[in-house]
Amino acid sequence: MELTFLGTGAGLPSKERNVTAIVLSLLQEINHIWLFDCGEATQHQILQTSIKPRKINKIFITHLHGDHIYGLPGLLSSRSFQGGEEALTVYGPVGIKQYIETSLTLSESHLTYPLEIIEIDEGIIVEEEAFHVYAKKLDHAIPSFGYRIIEKDRPGELLVNKLMDLGIKPGPIYSKIKENPSVILDNGQVIFRKDVIGPNKKGRIVSILGDTRYRDEHIEFIKNSDVLVHEATFAQEHEELAKNYYHSTTTQTAALARNGNVKRLVLTHISSRYQNETTQSLLREAQELFENTVIAEDFYHTSIEYQQ
Amino acid sequence: MELTFLGTGAGLPSKERNVTAIVLSLLQEINHIWLFDCGEATQHQILQTSIKPRKINKIFITHLHGDHIYGLPGLLSSRSFQGGEEALTVYGPVGIKQYIETSLTLSESHLTYPLEIIEIDEGIIVEEEAFHVYAKKLDHAIPSFGYRIIEKDRPGELLVNKLMDLGIKPGPIYSKIKENPSVILDNGQVIFRKDVIGPNKKGRIVSILGDTRYRDEHIEFIKNSDVLVHEATFAQEHEELAKNYYHSTTTQTAALARNGNVKRLVLTHISSRYQNETTQSLLREAQELFENTVIAEDFYHTSIEYQQ
Repeated sequence: MELTFLGTGAGLPSKERNVTAIVLSLLQEINHIWLFDCGEATQHQILQTSIKPRKINKIFITHLHGDHIYGLPGLLSSRSFQGGEEALTVYGPVGIKQYIETSLTLSESHLTYPLEIIEIDEGIIVEEEAFHVYAKKLDHAIPSFGYRIIEKDRPGELLVNKLMDLGIKPGPIYSKIKENPSVILDNGQVIFRKDVIGPNKKGRIVSILGDTRYRDEHIEFIKNSDVLVHEATFAQEHEELAKNYYHSTTTQTAALARNGNVKRLVLTHISSRYQNETTQSLLREAQELFENTVIAEDFYHTSIEYQQ
Repeated sequence: MELTFLGTGAGLPSKERNVTAIVLSLLQEINHIWLFDCGEATQHQILQTSIKPRKINKIFITHLHGDHIYGLPGLLSSRSFQGGEEALTVYGPVGIKQYIETSLTLSESHLTYPLEIIEIDEGIIVEEEAFHVYAKKLDHAIPSFGYRIIEKDRPGELLVNKLMDLGIKPGPIYSKIKENPSVILDNGQVIFRKDVIGPNKKGRIVSILGDTRYRDEHIEFIKNSDVLVHEATFAQEHEELAKNYYHSTTTQTAALARNGNVKRLVLTHISSRYQNETTQSLLREAQELFENTVIAEDFYHTSIEYQQ
């Protein structure tokens, strides 16, 4: 699991920050990439990375404000232009279907791959073998969703010492033992997996929230996330602005991270009024309440490791 | 009159060329900027220039393919975000209204300025004091228009020598003489403008055509242009591809320029299959038929001078 931030600004693009798009790479886990929001020029940002649009098989839209969706028609068309054939699903609030279909139809963009558009409500929206995704409605001027991505627990590592003690040497038999509850060896000996395997690896949790005000109700939703990705459009001193425009401040977001006992907080959706030194002071404000915080910049990249 | 090319590629953005957008600056003439097509990330390209979106008061769309319109909703919203208040008119083929209105409505983008969207047909579409604009339907897979922008002839320069001979010294009286058919001086002398002014300056003509195949019928439309801006998606050797995809080759476009007796040809909408050296060979192909040709690159800028 790796996160790459393609756009970390708010409202409109600036020279420093593009509008919102966040990539969750699951290439190692399921050979796919998921995209969260798709502001204008997301495909242009992708050109600067090694990300292949045809590997993106799910796009999650948090809300329909232009700085989160205006890059969608272009990305969907270009994925087709580049010969993408694998199905793609877009999840988003009511209206996302009309937006995409109108744009593609009027521009006569005929996709080379099946496109499904799912207008979501709260609750579980993706239920796959390795990952589940839950959606929750936040508190914004228009319907805005948060997404909680939960990795299923993975089997632990084989205890090689134990196997060696049993006289079983490394080879294809190791995979067989790992993949089956029990295995009968050539010599008739029965090996139960549970006896030779370490504890399950706790699946990782990533929460990516759309634009929103701080609300206590969000604590439960983001609880114990390995990474919380959350907007911090405003500094603490602009709390009134944040409230009026349905956004959060650095301090409010840090409080959410602390209250939710997350491991790490990545702030994004930073207003262009803050630059350079003031960005540093945004970070300090957040870190006073929640130390393990970073402010994402465009192309900020981070891996999400299993907790020990 | 100045032209700036913000995007010169075909179909989808590449690292080298963004998708189509062409700026015709009329700041000196009427204090406005006109934009022709608005591919995705046009507003991002504008960030790299001194162009102010609020100065753009007309946008002409040649056709509805995504690489010519997907930047519109973002540019319109950002112009508003930046406090633009002056009215803006968008001209384009049928469907442009639904595209813009659906995008702005679903994203709840409320503009701070009056926006008029005019779905055009062939003929004169702008009739202002200083400029007229004509539209013509071209030959593309979907309705695609060319625009011919005609500057009204401007009065010549005052003949200062003649005025001095008449004993009239430079001062506010010079403007008065230039602006009126006749003026009575304090000493009772009558000065007729026609006697003291040089010949009219011939108004300039710029023709900017959307995606199209070569057609003889286009010659009359682009005739005698000071600058012809025209696509050359393909090299001469790919004439079959050009025909199949309703585009033009370098050679076809150069022939149009020659047949139309234009002064200068700027090629754009170059397929990303051509890079570096092959672009040079595209240029040579065109120049064999029409010498005064350039191939635009992103941010290529040129002034259009009055013909002597």
